[in-house]
Amino acid sequence: MKARQFFISTLKEAPADADIVSQQLMIRAGMIKKLAAGVYTYMPMGLRVIRKIENIVREEMVRSGAVELLMPIVQPAELWVESGRWEKYGPELLRFKDRHQRDFVIQPTSEEVITDIARQEITSWRQLPVNLFQIQTKFRDERRPRFGVMRGREFIMKDGYSFDRDADAAGKSYETMFDAYCRIFNRTGLVFRPVAADTGSIGGNRSNEFQVIADTGEDLIAYCPDSQYAANIELAEAVQVGGERAAATEEMQKVPTPGRDKCELVTELLGLPLTKSVKSVVLASDERDEEGNVLPAKIVLILLRGDHSLNEVKAGKLPELKNGFRFATEAEILKAFGSKPGYLGPVGLDPKEVKIYADRSVINMSDFVVGANEEGFHLRGVNFGRDLPEPEVADLRNVVEGDPSPDGKGTLKLQRGIEVGHVFYLGTKYSEAMHATYLDEEGKSRVLEMGCYGIGISRVAGAAIEQNHDDRGMIWPDAIAPFTVAICPMGYKRSEAVQKVCDELHDKLAAEGIDVILDDRDLRPGPMFADWELIGVPHRIVVGDRGLKNGEIEYANRRTLDQKEMVKVEDAVAFIKSKLKA
Amino acid sequence: MKARQFFISTLKEAPADADIVSQQLMIRAGMIKKLAAGVYTYMPMGLRVIRKIENIVREEMVRSGAVELLMPIVQPAELWVESGRWEKYGPELLRFKDRHQRDFVIQPTSEEVITDIARQEITSWRQLPVNLFQIQTKFRDERRPRFGVMRGREFIMKDGYSFDRDADAAGKSYETMFDAYCRIFNRTGLVFRPVAADTGSIGGNRSNEFQVIADTGEDLIAYCPDSQYAANIELAEAVQVGGERAAATEEMQKVPTPGRDKCELVTELLGLPLTKSVKSVVLASDERDEEGNVLPAKIVLILLRGDHSLNEVKAGKLPELKNGFRFATEAEILKAFGSKPGYLGPVGLDPKEVKIYADRSVINMSDFVVGANEEGFHLRGVNFGRDLPEPEVADLRNVVEGDPSPDGKGTLKLQRGIEVGHVFYLGTKYSEAMHATYLDEEGKSRVLEMGCYGIGISRVAGAAIEQNHDDRGMIWPDAIAPFTVAICPMGYKRSEAVQKVCDELHDKLAAEGIDVILDDRDLRPGPMFADWELIGVPHRIVVGDRGLKNGEIEYANRRTLDQKEMVKVEDAVAFIKSKLKA
Repeated sequence: MKARQFFISTLKEAPADADIVSQQLMIRAGMIKKLAAGVYTYMPMGLRVIRKIENIVREEMVRSGAVELLMPIVQPAELWVESGRWEKYGPELLRFKDRHQRDFVIQPTSEEVITDIARQEITSWRQLPVNLFQIQTKFRDERRPRFGVMRGREFIMKDGYSFDRDADAAGKSYETMFDAYCRIFNRTGLVFRPVAADTGSIGGNRSNEFQVIADTGEDLIAYCPDSQYAANIELAEAVQVGGERAAATEEMQKVPTPGRDKCELVTELLGLPLTKSVKSVVLASDERDEEGNVLPAKIVLILLRGDHSLNEVKAGKLPELKNGFRFATEAEILKAFGSKPGYLGPVGLDPKEVKIYADRSVINMSDFVVGANEEGFHLRGVNFGRDLPEPEVADLRNVVEGDPSPDGKGTLKLQRGIEVGHVFYLGTKYSEAMHATYLDEEGKSRVLEMGCYGIGISRVAGAAIEQNHDDRGMIWPDAIAPFTVAICPMGYKRSEAVQKVCDELHDKLAAEGIDVILDDRDLRPGPMFADWELIGVPHRIVVGDRGLKNGEIEYANRRTLDQKEMVKVEDAVAFIKSKLKA
Repeated sequence: MKARQFFISTLKEAPADADIVSQQLMIRAGMIKKLAAGVYTYMPMGLRVIRKIENIVREEMVRSGAVELLMPIVQPAELWVESGRWEKYGPELLRFKDRHQRDFVIQPTSEEVITDIARQEITSWRQLPVNLFQIQTKFRDERRPRFGVMRGREFIMKDGYSFDRDADAAGKSYETMFDAYCRIFNRTGLVFRPVAADTGSIGGNRSNEFQVIADTGEDLIAYCPDSQYAANIELAEAVQVGGERAAATEEMQKVPTPGRDKCELVTELLGLPLTKSVKSVVLASDERDEEGNVLPAKIVLILLRGDHSLNEVKAGKLPELKNGFRFATEAEILKAFGSKPGYLGPVGLDPKEVKIYADRSVINMSDFVVGANEEGFHLRGVNFGRDLPEPEVADLRNVVEGDPSPDGKGTLKLQRGIEVGHVFYLGTKYSEAMHATYLDEEGKSRVLEMGCYGIGISRVAGAAIEQNHDDRGMIWPDAIAPFTVAICPMGYKRSEAVQKVCDELHDKLAAEGIDVILDDRDLRPGPMFADWELIGVPHRIVVGDRGLKNGEIEYANRRTLDQKEMVKVEDAVAFIKSKLKA
């Protein structure tokens, strides 16, 4: 490809509303163009990256035995009513009426449609397993779309769905997809980590997110450098820390702590370490009677060590909170505790009013500090079994760096990631709701077991940049770069020799199937280099009269622009090919 | 590909609501699956066809210098308001509000977005020409979607847009696209015809439709077998027929014609040929004064020879009707003519009430019959210049077979076609409305000249079937067949020899890059052949023990299934390759 035949449009400055580096760089490099909030055009340079990611995904899906189809973007409401998602999905589900006033949605995913296809097409165990996927535009009406293509409203996604005869077979399909995803992300050239993730209301332990490691990631990952353990912070099990419970040495004592409404402030005043304080988090679960009348909310007190933080996903699994919860209002807190927030504690509560759960790491504390349920006062020297009953215990906190790994093989580290893929065992959630069954060997009707498997194609592009960039711009891995090699002539129109070498090299590299672009725009070296450094083409060849005097061209890798190598013109193709293999 | 790894699902019967053969066959062959009216899933077998068509289109677009991008499916209303299409586009434009109550549309095409991109990106004459295209899902909320993928609501379209400095340069872009389209449709292997088409309100003569020839087509095409002339019936020029006007030989005479309210009935009664009668068609154009008050409609009388039919597109170009027209109501007719329809004519009308236009082939008639403007009566022996003034003349009728070709090189024939592509010179319609300008060499701001170029990807698939099918099913051209070669084993599981030859042949053909499917489903020959004949794979190889005794396999082409050829196993790959070249 020659640059003048292509469409290159770079900007010096990113627009003010671009809030992360990938978005800024993609806009500056002319890869995407904003049309509306969270809605982008993929400009030619950006579309090349998208297509390369798509092709890797497609090839590995097909290699794993999955078959591609294409479901409609516009889907009738009926199926969504049947699955229950018409009710449950919030305003992120874009709903509209057609000219005949029938309800439709723009697909955010296609579980309903694929289950509808499966229940029509799959009738016998002989047809199983079936694994179908599509690469298609999706829409989620995010309240606050941001981060460019990372959290857009319109985005490109690969979504795949497996159908199996039972949970064992579904497990095999799941493993097959897990392996395919590892191959896919390995091929992209990105540093990633598959992490265990929460399965929500589905249950079971088959949910893995594929996280591209990047400091700017929204997600926090806990992993053990000494083992295979890795989990999303939401799921990562926090084991008990702090050792055995020591015997009580202090008497419980009410101490004035005016204005000290946080653990840090209280322990500072009392001269105690933060780990001696217990934090009281009050949650509420709204209740209704059978006729739908609103009842007073259930109040749950969560006790956490002062330096720990609540894990809301874990809290949501407590029996009292499993139908949804929120933080209690000040009025509810005043009623149940007799005090305003900041001075709450578990001592002296009415168990009929407040259900208490302690995090694992609280239960072995002694002589600790809690709020006195009276504004401006705390209790110190508090001990379980003596000053208050032994509470129920659960894993309720987020892990922190240095926590023991749940597999017992070392300690946890934390890092940030960007979720680019998700494999998920669905079980019979959709197939049961939509009556997708097959006949087994004995002619007995059974419900299909399903899995779903997503990859955010456009998100992979954003994550790649978050992971790979410098002050000059993006740095693409070879496999998903818009172009693999950029040829930069010094005086393309001025020097016949330069033009001839560039043209020949371009044609030879292209003939080898290498994605090469020759910059024939006749720019000065500064702006030309700046463009290709911004766009992040991984391999650069500079051809100028000075080098050609020695029959040489200059090579540099985008990651190491200072380490230039001079290469004989006749060796250039072989040289580039060796660099691409490396 | 082996059949068991793929997803094959054929039906004996098409659903009752499938109204044309391509829709019936695509559903029966498991290529598409209806989700809602005019909304289909492309099942794996169908998607393969779509992808092959897409790839041909993409390759030829790129070869012609166009650059691919991808615009959003969801587009903000603002741009559509700016272009004027928010008002003008009817209910086929799907409009909806997002969660913030902002207006959006689902794109039926992308003129607005591409013009918005152009006005931001194209600033200088140095950047021109620019030609951008996308292959993307579109939505048109058809009132009555039908014909499967041919007139669906959701469909896949290639839409491209060119930007040029002036009309001359735009003409060159137009020619380039015209040539690219010829290459594209030649490569699909379909019989097609580029035909001149109407340019509507844009004017000029640069509009060509690409019509796939099929008896079931919705469009009528006039062409001259002796020249290059071909035009959509809407545009095809009707030259004057019937020779010079003969002198009047009869007196005008009022004759009773009770109940004879059609030309055929009147001439039958009078014993005259139909070509001696003149048909009166009354059109009306609604008028408003400057303050928007409704005025009485303008009434226009069109005179056509009794055997001719009105061409509404041509009528719409008359000065009185160019802002839109309709057929006059009975009340309007009564008021202007004093008679109810069926007995209308041009004699004795008030020119202030009714404007008269005669078709070219009426003006040279003499002694003709018209309605008497009195129920139950006609006038015979009517002559222009004597019984009524000479009328204004225009080309107002549809051509018929046998009409002289407008290029003077023979006579016209008619055939039916399916429009699969359209190249269109837009001029400055969008660029002017949306202020898309560039600076020329003298630094002067000029409006960009545009062209737009569409190909209905999913429609090509339907048209291919309409053109190529028989009682057994579809017959795909090699280039867009879901698979090129089907290997049908007779006893894949029963005979080791059959399995071995099939597997080896499959692998060798696949290694040659040939799209082969091996049917390892172990079906009986009848159902297996029926499936592949229905699906329409163009080349079939049958491998059975009987043939293998002589070291031979059987080849048949889908078009000529009775002409089987026996081929030595060792020659099979070369033989198939020679068939694919042919």
